[in-house]
Amino acid sequence: MQNKIKELKSILGEVSDLNYASAVLGWDQQTYMPSGGAEGRGRQLATLARLAHIRFTSDEVGQLLEDLEPYAEQLPADSDDARLIKVTRREYDKSTKVTSEWVSDFANETTLGQSVWEKAREKSDFSMFQPNLEKIIALRRQYAEFFAPYDHVYDPLLDDFEPGLKTAEVKEIFDNLRPKQVELIQAISEKPQVDDSFIHLEFPDQKQWDFGEKVISDFGFDWNRGRQDKTAHPFTTSFGLDDVRITTRVITNLGGSALFSTMHEAGHAMYEQGFPASLGRTPLANGASMAVHESQSRMWENLVGRSYAFWTYYYPILQAFFPSQLGNVDLETFYKGINKVEPSLIRVESDEATYNLHIMLRLELEIAMMEGSLAAKDLPEAWNDRMNSYLGITPQNDRVGVLQDVHWSGGMIGYFPTYALGNLVSTQLWESIQKDLPDLEEQIAKGHFGELLGWLRDKIHRHGAKFEPQELVQQVTGSKIDAASYVRYLNKKYKAIYNL
Amino acid sequence: MQNKIKELKSILGEVSDLNYASAVLGWDQQTYMPSGGAEGRGRQLATLARLAHIRFTSDEVGQLLEDLEPYAEQLPADSDDARLIKVTRREYDKSTKVTSEWVSDFANETTLGQSVWEKAREKSDFSMFQPNLEKIIALRRQYAEFFAPYDHVYDPLLDDFEPGLKTAEVKEIFDNLRPKQVELIQAISEKPQVDDSFIHLEFPDQKQWDFGEKVISDFGFDWNRGRQDKTAHPFTTSFGLDDVRITTRVITNLGGSALFSTMHEAGHAMYEQGFPASLGRTPLANGASMAVHESQSRMWENLVGRSYAFWTYYYPILQAFFPSQLGNVDLETFYKGINKVEPSLIRVESDEATYNLHIMLRLELEIAMMEGSLAAKDLPEAWNDRMNSYLGITPQNDRVGVLQDVHWSGGMIGYFPTYALGNLVSTQLWESIQKDLPDLEEQIAKGHFGELLGWLRDKIHRHGAKFEPQELVQQVTGSKIDAASYVRYLNKKYKAIYNL
Repeated sequence: MQNKIKELKSILGEVSDLNYASAVLGWDQQTYMPSGGAEGRGRQLATLARLAHIRFTSDEVGQLLEDLEPYAEQLPADSDDARLIKVTRREYDKSTKVTSEWVSDFANETTLGQSVWEKAREKSDFSMFQPNLEKIIALRRQYAEFFAPYDHVYDPLLDDFEPGLKTAEVKEIFDNLRPKQVELIQAISEKPQVDDSFIHLEFPDQKQWDFGEKVISDFGFDWNRGRQDKTAHPFTTSFGLDDVRITTRVITNLGGSALFSTMHEAGHAMYEQGFPASLGRTPLANGASMAVHESQSRMWENLVGRSYAFWTYYYPILQAFFPSQLGNVDLETFYKGINKVEPSLIRVESDEATYNLHIMLRLELEIAMMEGSLAAKDLPEAWNDRMNSYLGITPQNDRVGVLQDVHWSGGMIGYFPTYALGNLVSTQLWESIQKDLPDLEEQIAKGHFGELLGWLRDKIHRHGAKFEPQELVQQVTGSKIDAASYVRYLNKKYKAIYNL
Repeated sequence: MQNKIKELKSILGEVSDLNYASAVLGWDQQTYMPSGGAEGRGRQLATLARLAHIRFTSDEVGQLLEDLEPYAEQLPADSDDARLIKVTRREYDKSTKVTSEWVSDFANETTLGQSVWEKAREKSDFSMFQPNLEKIIALRRQYAEFFAPYDHVYDPLLDDFEPGLKTAEVKEIFDNLRPKQVELIQAISEKPQVDDSFIHLEFPDQKQWDFGEKVISDFGFDWNRGRQDKTAHPFTTSFGLDDVRITTRVITNLGGSALFSTMHEAGHAMYEQGFPASLGRTPLANGASMAVHESQSRMWENLVGRSYAFWTYYYPILQAFFPSQLGNVDLETFYKGINKVEPSLIRVESDEATYNLHIMLRLELEIAMMEGSLAAKDLPEAWNDRMNSYLGITPQNDRVGVLQDVHWSGGMIGYFPTYALGNLVSTQLWESIQKDLPDLEEQIAKGHFGELLGWLRDKIHRHGAKFEPQELVQQVTGSKIDAASYVRYLNKKYKAIYNL
């Protein structure tokens, strides 16, 4: 069996190398590639993806899994090898159940969809994109059928991002959360608004960049095993456990600025930098799920980076970076300003109190479309109705409404809920951390993050993708993913800011 | 047959994609990769190289070649398909004749050799590196045996870089050249030296960078299909016909500066940018040989970039970039200064008049080691003797002598002559260009390079690797590679500068 597991790891290592190579090519595509390189790069990425797919879905891997599964059952259930075999089986089945015809159709439709969406968005005209969305939904239904029987047609899609999680679970979590968030926003809206005018001043790019890098260096981002570059949209990508890169976008004011995006991506990256070498070049060298990944990024961005404790230490430093912009803005004003709650049309610009409502809206629409109860043509109206009932505002056009996000044109249905779930997991973990590190807030107020990162390394990072998200959250916090801690967190935070 | 040629191209395209992916990973490794990424990157590159090798040397390719060769004979000899089949056969035989055991031994020995050489160089102690060099030479002899029978044991090595060229031809060319270069240097040494003190002033990095980019933009380097980054050693690399990248090193004076290195690499890059789309993703999307490649880089660097005509136009611009350094240096002084001849120990820092002698010395030593007439242990003495007789100077230690270049520790025996041959080809082409473009010098003196680049595109670039170097040079200039034009060029240039 030792030979077979070695053989399996050797194939998985080869597949990892191909995927990491793709990641390098993808990173370069978004950071430095000259425009002329696009066509060739597309072909290179297609070749690498095809070779990785062929190798991973080979009969050889199927046979090795069959041979190794009885052996895995004799191992401790949470041993690396047992989990590797389990996770590989899961991905192998996923990759082999789907026909190559579907894969090719889907690639074509989403490539086309993407370019049509871009034009439709520019013209703010959903009807241009509607036929493409219809095809994408049809393909996604077909995809679900590969995994029949299922409890819910949305389950197989969700499972791609949240292994083991069911639609019914997510619905229940969100059903608990929604009224409480709506209620909070309502309460806030009745209070006088905070002043965030300083956010809209001019903050020179390089100084924002330097401050961001100082902060994430303090967090524990390892520059020997990572770097930061500029892109149109921030992201994190890994070329192995020892080369994890983040990108950021610098705009000249503090709204949606490099600062919080750098902390966010560093949260993702420190997760990836925390996988142990023993899991390297296997499918376990991944986050447990997108929600768990997002819990890390949102924790560093929000629970740390938008906290009062954090700014008691960093605000004087930030003021020293930007004396003319912030010299006359006191800490209280600054803290309230960066935490201003204001229902807005655009998800990626929304604050902590309203963000999840944007997600819930999308999830409901996705589910309805997958179930067939909502036709693509009726989507803009359904979107606008919900925006109005959850946030009290109505998009003036499709561009800032139903066409704002890239996900649907790219076929990424099932992804949205992971953003909100990540928020919930972040506060669930936070409550556990506070129990284990009672002086956490004092540490943060001194710019000390070593114990926090150590806790995350020990409880979350070192497991990579060994555990499913519900399993991991249960193991670390004592309960599955739920909304209670997040509601407590929001209420406490905004009570102080808005005198609720 | 159309199906078979299509099939062959499809496999070659896949191999190209893998090789281009390797090139991206290699570029990133030298430009932006954090230090921690080295180990993983090594594995990824090994995996990509192995997969490309397996695919290219597959029986399928062998069979397709056998099936296609009779068909190729019916095609016009210089048609793309006929040449593709011929070149692919050549590379296929090269790749399949060598045992995988040798490939693995060679990879191990040269990796080791590289790291030992670095230490030996640092300590300036050749004896540390001697055992490694012995093994590398032995492996290189073994390599030659895979291609027995040969006229000369050095032929198979040379052939890797200069397809079809024989050691005897190179020897003859160099035998003609050597006495004339020695004589010229002797004559120069008897004249008063020129003043190049301005070169050693401080030239701010960013301005050097900007000036270099301005110049190569004027040359015709296509920024939509390329870019420039910084590395420790300048190089050119391609990720396809539409993404060709150069790198440069910026040091704060003009000696070995970014300026000439940028022009040099742009010469390589414009060659690669000039391959026609029809040759894309095949082995024909390459330079005809390393010497032909070097003829392009040296032409733009030296025949253009160190010419009087060039600086009549660009010197005022350069002065505007560096008023405090060059404001009081007149054009004559500048031109003579950047063309100063001075026998020196280091090849990469040597001037046009002495450069080839560095190469000839290395070639003679390589041949002697391959023939077995020179033992590795006697190499430093042989090196120093020749330095003394060709250039009249003796290295004070191994570091600035026999250990200065990376090539031998990397097993790259057979490569050195291509540098000097490139110089010769550059002037051979130049004489042909001058016939076709009688006002070439006036054009350069106006900063116009369109006709020059157009000529190169038409006569050299568009053929890619369709022709062997001797074939191509013959076709374009009417004679094979020879030294006469280079001697004419050197004599004319230095006669003016040194009043010979």
